[in-house]
Amino acid sequence: MELHALTPIDEINLRIAKIRSAMIQQNLDAILISDNANIYYVTGRVINGYVYLPADGDVTYFIRRPLELKGDNIHYIRKPEQIAEYLEAKGIEQPRNLGLELSVTDYMTVERLSKLFPSSTISNASQVLRVSRAVKTPFELEMLRRSGVKHAMVYRHIPNLYQDGMSDIELQIEIERASRLEGCLGQFRISGGSMELFMCNILTGENADTPTPYDFAMGGGGLDPSLPVGANGTIIKPGMTVMVDANGNFTGYMTDMTRVFSLGNVEPLAYEAHECSIKICRELEKLGTPGTPASQLYERAIEIVTQHGLEHYFMGHAQKAGFIGHGVGIEINELPVIAPRSKDILQLNNVIALEPKFVIPQIGAVGIENTYIVTANGLERITNAPEHIISLD
Amino acid sequence: MELHALTPIDEINLRIAKIRSAMIQQNLDAILISDNANIYYVTGRVINGYVYLPADGDVTYFIRRPLELKGDNIHYIRKPEQIAEYLEAKGIEQPRNLGLELSVTDYMTVERLSKLFPSSTISNASQVLRVSRAVKTPFELEMLRRSGVKHAMVYRHIPNLYQDGMSDIELQIEIERASRLEGCLGQFRISGGSMELFMCNILTGENADTPTPYDFAMGGGGLDPSLPVGANGTIIKPGMTVMVDANGNFTGYMTDMTRVFSLGNVEPLAYEAHECSIKICRELEKLGTPGTPASQLYERAIEIVTQHGLEHYFMGHAQKAGFIGHGVGIEINELPVIAPRSKDILQLNNVIALEPKFVIPQIGAVGIENTYIVTANGLERITNAPEHIISLD
Repeated sequence: MELHALTPIDEINLRIAKIRSAMIQQNLDAILISDNANIYYVTGRVINGYVYLPADGDVTYFIRRPLELKGDNIHYIRKPEQIAEYLEAKGIEQPRNLGLELSVTDYMTVERLSKLFPSSTISNASQVLRVSRAVKTPFELEMLRRSGVKHAMVYRHIPNLYQDGMSDIELQIEIERASRLEGCLGQFRISGGSMELFMCNILTGENADTPTPYDFAMGGGGLDPSLPVGANGTIIKPGMTVMVDANGNFTGYMTDMTRVFSLGNVEPLAYEAHECSIKICRELEKLGTPGTPASQLYERAIEIVTQHGLEHYFMGHAQKAGFIGHGVGIEINELPVIAPRSKDILQLNNVIALEPKFVIPQIGAVGIENTYIVTANGLERITNAPEHIISLD
Repeated sequence: MELHALTPIDEINLRIAKIRSAMIQQNLDAILISDNANIYYVTGRVINGYVYLPADGDVTYFIRRPLELKGDNIHYIRKPEQIAEYLEAKGIEQPRNLGLELSVTDYMTVERLSKLFPSSTISNASQVLRVSRAVKTPFELEMLRRSGVKHAMVYRHIPNLYQDGMSDIELQIEIERASRLEGCLGQFRISGGSMELFMCNILTGENADTPTPYDFAMGGGGLDPSLPVGANGTIIKPGMTVMVDANGNFTGYMTDMTRVFSLGNVEPLAYEAHECSIKICRELEKLGTPGTPASQLYERAIEIVTQHGLEHYFMGHAQKAGFIGHGVGIEINELPVIAPRSKDILQLNNVIALEPKFVIPQIGAVGIENTYIVTANGLERITNAPEHIISLD
């Protein structure tokens, strides 16, 4: 099969041009890419190997697996030392300044790769790649929109999946199945060594207030100490809210979305906080134009929360999250970060998830999460499903 | 909650003693642990933070999240720089030789942590931790046995899950649900930056011969170029084999298991290769005693395959895997590695998965996988379900 059979070559060239323009700003003469998410970005597929991307000249693909890929500048290798041998044989000079993915590649691998380029200064290329990936191409926006449509469809099934007496995890298993049948790929990429992500998290009742080690917006104790987050087996009862945060990966590009359900009515405080979350989203949709500091979205959210006197419950109760949103794309935690000390400035065609959420002790979690494209007129919502609390009975 | 509430303190102390004895052999005075799998091993739970484990003296726990853990030597931090401040304030000298997890921690994090210990020589502690974890404690063996029992139960449901006209992925989704309902935690830890693992892989027909970038025993094209492995939507038809490799994580400890199904009869070559796989397992079960080189298991398997003239199909056809088995535990790819150039020697209470498999072009994949404990008398099988090819109709 052709290496580039799966993504239009113009799209691949556009992405490479974007990375090269960021490389020039960082004074990088070449980067050597091996992280799966970045490999997927620059080739449109996952390969086990390395992409050598010089600021000028041909991109070279050093592949271990899969066998049988065809195309220009593909070179099969067994070990990374063959990269240097090949470049030397081709008369390609060692780059003065070589970028490696120092924020995601393990230390021993970086040491080994650095030795192949004794004449090069090694710099961190992770930020160049993160910044390039944060501004989506029209092709990528289409992948995200398609994911959003299927993602919203999963949520429309949820009231039909609930049966009397179900626990949080039993409902979650049916949502996972419905999501897979809609085409969810099941796996989700997340950046950072201590992050681990599953298809879906449901929080109901007191469990919503259990702190988790993971750096997510919400917590939950989980079913086992080896994976302490999310549903813990709580039976869903009247008066509890049921927050469903099911991730959407239908195209290799991820949308993030949360809705809340209940059995009959819940306490007024829960409705009030939930409506506050919807109000925050409406406000930030107008505010989120290119050029707006990400921190300003956070501050505006805090203002609205404070006006409603709901600070005590915002972004957690026993333990609070330090952000209200994040970029999404090939990974679920891309740039920009919507947090008080974020230096990120919204750019046209960023894609972000906003998740202003509340934990109401004993009752559960409330609030919505949507995925948005940053447009000249504000945020375009691509996860469209009813937003108010929906009763399961 | 108490930090150690979830695992008996004697168990934790036993694991720490094992690591310390490996540290002394490597001349490590202390190690600083932050990888989730290793944190889980030394605490019995996942925390976001660091465990400072000196060869002598108290273990100290530096925790960012979750809040509210109680116990001795717990110190809450916001950033790793506070580790050095705390140790200095306590009058604890910087270790001469400090081990960090250099094989799994990203380069930038290692640089940051190294700066906190300017008087220390930094060494790689990854191997010390891998070697310690490879020999399971009686408590861990019990976790693995419990996982194996539930795992086998999932396979017993499979014939009832198949319906006429199903595709590989439709059957897989029902197996995933059945596995979750038996208590599967859904997520699986795997070591190595380019490895990504999902709950289940099904291979049927020609798709079994599609090379994958991942370093698994078998391949498959997958549903999307972003995750190119496993089921690709092939409709299951008479004459094809259906290989089900569903991972088992019911306790934080993983068992690995594969069985093969069919619609009616398949070609004699497929039965012959499948029976050869069972024969290899029976032989290696006798051979796998403490002290046996892992490479010897591989060589014996190749001998049997060659006697049957099946080399052409063994461990893949268009693309071949370089191993027939691997250690399992907290992660699916632990020590020892059962491969031709492996230097590993089987030890009492290693736990390994053996997966001598074949790809028969056009028909599919055949062969079994079981998880075993290395005992004085050979391998004890902990994934017990019928091993011959089972017809789904």
